[in-house]
Amino acid sequence: MSEARKTQAAAIDTSDWLQSVRWDGDKLMMLDQRLLPEEVVYLELRTPEDVWEGIRELKVRGAPAIGISAAYGVALGANAWRQPDGASAAEARGALLEEVRRIADYLATSRPTAVNLFWALDRMKATAEKLAADEALDAEGMKAGLLEEAHRIQAEDEQVCRQIGENALDLLHDGMGLLTHCNAGGLATARYGTALAPMYLARERGWNFKVFADETRPVLQGARLTAFELQRAGIDVTLICDNMAAMVMSKGWVQAVIVGTDRVAANGDVANKIGTYGLAVLAKAHGIPFYVACPLSTIDLNTPTGGDIPIEERHEKEITEGFGKRTAPAGVKVFNPAFDVTPNEYVTAIITEKGIVRAPYSETLPKLFES
Amino acid sequence: MSEARKTQAAAIDTSDWLQSVRWDGDKLMMLDQRLLPEEVVYLELRTPEDVWEGIRELKVRGAPAIGISAAYGVALGANAWRQPDGASAAEARGALLEEVRRIADYLATSRPTAVNLFWALDRMKATAEKLAADEALDAEGMKAGLLEEAHRIQAEDEQVCRQIGENALDLLHDGMGLLTHCNAGGLATARYGTALAPMYLARERGWNFKVFADETRPVLQGARLTAFELQRAGIDVTLICDNMAAMVMSKGWVQAVIVGTDRVAANGDVANKIGTYGLAVLAKAHGIPFYVACPLSTIDLNTPTGGDIPIEERHEKEITEGFGKRTAPAGVKVFNPAFDVTPNEYVTAIITEKGIVRAPYSETLPKLFES
Repeated sequence: MSEARKTQAAAIDTSDWLQSVRWDGDKLMMLDQRLLPEEVVYLELRTPEDVWEGIRELKVRGAPAIGISAAYGVALGANAWRQPDGASAAEARGALLEEVRRIADYLATSRPTAVNLFWALDRMKATAEKLAADEALDAEGMKAGLLEEAHRIQAEDEQVCRQIGENALDLLHDGMGLLTHCNAGGLATARYGTALAPMYLARERGWNFKVFADETRPVLQGARLTAFELQRAGIDVTLICDNMAAMVMSKGWVQAVIVGTDRVAANGDVANKIGTYGLAVLAKAHGIPFYVACPLSTIDLNTPTGGDIPIEERHEKEITEGFGKRTAPAGVKVFNPAFDVTPNEYVTAIITEKGIVRAPYSETLPKLFES
Repeated sequence: MSEARKTQAAAIDTSDWLQSVRWDGDKLMMLDQRLLPEEVVYLELRTPEDVWEGIRELKVRGAPAIGISAAYGVALGANAWRQPDGASAAEARGALLEEVRRIADYLATSRPTAVNLFWALDRMKATAEKLAADEALDAEGMKAGLLEEAHRIQAEDEQVCRQIGENALDLLHDGMGLLTHCNAGGLATARYGTALAPMYLARERGWNFKVFADETRPVLQGARLTAFELQRAGIDVTLICDNMAAMVMSKGWVQAVIVGTDRVAANGDVANKIGTYGLAVLAKAHGIPFYVACPLSTIDLNTPTGGDIPIEERHEKEITEGFGKRTAPAGVKVFNPAFDVTPNEYVTAIITEKGIVRAPYSETLPKLFES
């Protein structure tokens, strides 16, 4: 992996969309989001191992962007696969299918919570199976087909996010105060984001929202990413610490909370960045609607409830040395869950590309998948 | 001001109590709490200006410790005052009284929210008035009397905190999970603290609490000070980010929230470190009692409601560059209130040295001052 392009954020044309990942000929360019907002650095990823590390180390994050990255990780691994001498086309396709399965299983170990990772890997495996069964193809054709599928996942995500934004606008109106947590923006997806999509699309209607962005400890995705991308787009954004959200709500400055999610269970329980659950409780106490925006690929009907969603715990250093400087006593015990679960009773509505659903989610969520 | 003593925290005997401020012959030694937990540095303060800056810049913080520091700041200013040539003892006392009033008014501008600051300065002014009226005294005697009063304020605070701790234990029991925010510990007072006092005293009874300490953004007093002092004392403490408190509560790990306060209004509304209000709402939603511990000097019957308490807003850099490293885009709007107000309806009880009071606070708080 190398630094392909490094520019100061200040020098960037704000009309230039920053893509979280983009394919470049034979490699994946990944924006190193850990360095934002101070530096814009794209890394060259050439192997599934590079992609695994990119996901694990939060160079890329955000459920849809993780899924897209993993799909390209499969494509990278397939491209690097070399056909054994003397193998027939059918034998080569079968061996490449095995290789794809192996890579997908490996990439699935990078992070546990966001279901889009598994969704994208399943889709790549299913594509590999279909391609392997195509007798007209050789291994190179199969590789091309896998890369096409990764491109398709990325392109679809952009369309899906735009539609989520359009649908979300039905719940919002000009002049509203919105509060969001973590980053469910363009940097977390192919483009537009989920929770931030309506903020971008509102500008096309001439609407102005006043957005409050929680900084989102410990990794500060709200401060580093959400404030950054909304500010670049000219949207009115105010940065607050997570513990200020309640005060901002009590002042009447917030008419809706809108967040993304890493996984929605079949009963409508929502896993999202740590702190989301508390926000949902506070929103309810203040009579503020709490909206969750996500693509269908984030809804996991195979996970019955939020209690069944694996919650990743991360290294204590994110809390004790999160800023390159120790800010807690050495050896102190730390609890660092990366996500929490918001019970469905706190979720006013879930906004998807197929429409908006409300409780009872165990009835309304499956219907989204019917058409 | 100079660095009088600098040692690595690791080298300190944990039985050695770290005093936030202590008088040393002709100067005030102030522990620079901004440098904890990595460095233990005592600063030599020789002027009221040194003390003003010490309070303003958060070298000392915590309502009672601010009050103690301000009292010593008045004593420092009085000691430096020089009697005009040829003045009579009465003229000198009168002139020194004016000087004390000037210094007190000046020190009162250091921070707006903690009422102990004004309480201590009022007490020093009243003492100066009493001393100025004493015809047996010369100016030097008056200076000695003022320093004695500062010592008395500090000594009383230690006793008061111990009594708060004893009273708080009536509400608690062995094995409880407690959650606290910011630092209302020994470092915020003369000794023992307010919210942390029962944690220290419990050890004398052989009780063990499991304490969760919110890190408390933006200045991280929970991570840097509360985790530090509890860990030094051998108390079971787990550090969390502020936005994890809701999850910790939902897991059933917390049986009481206990915090300090910078000012209690006459109706029982409580101003405390930003994030306290949100915690109180979350505690109520989880059926967890929310206790506030403070000396009577923090209760301000002259402030009718929380809405009348001035809330300090601090520099945006505390959020955007809090750790010596920029973590938000340049030029982003920031809202940085240092405190919030918890309405009395969320306060289960207020624990003072004179006993525990509950709603209706407008009736129960004044009774504390009657005996």
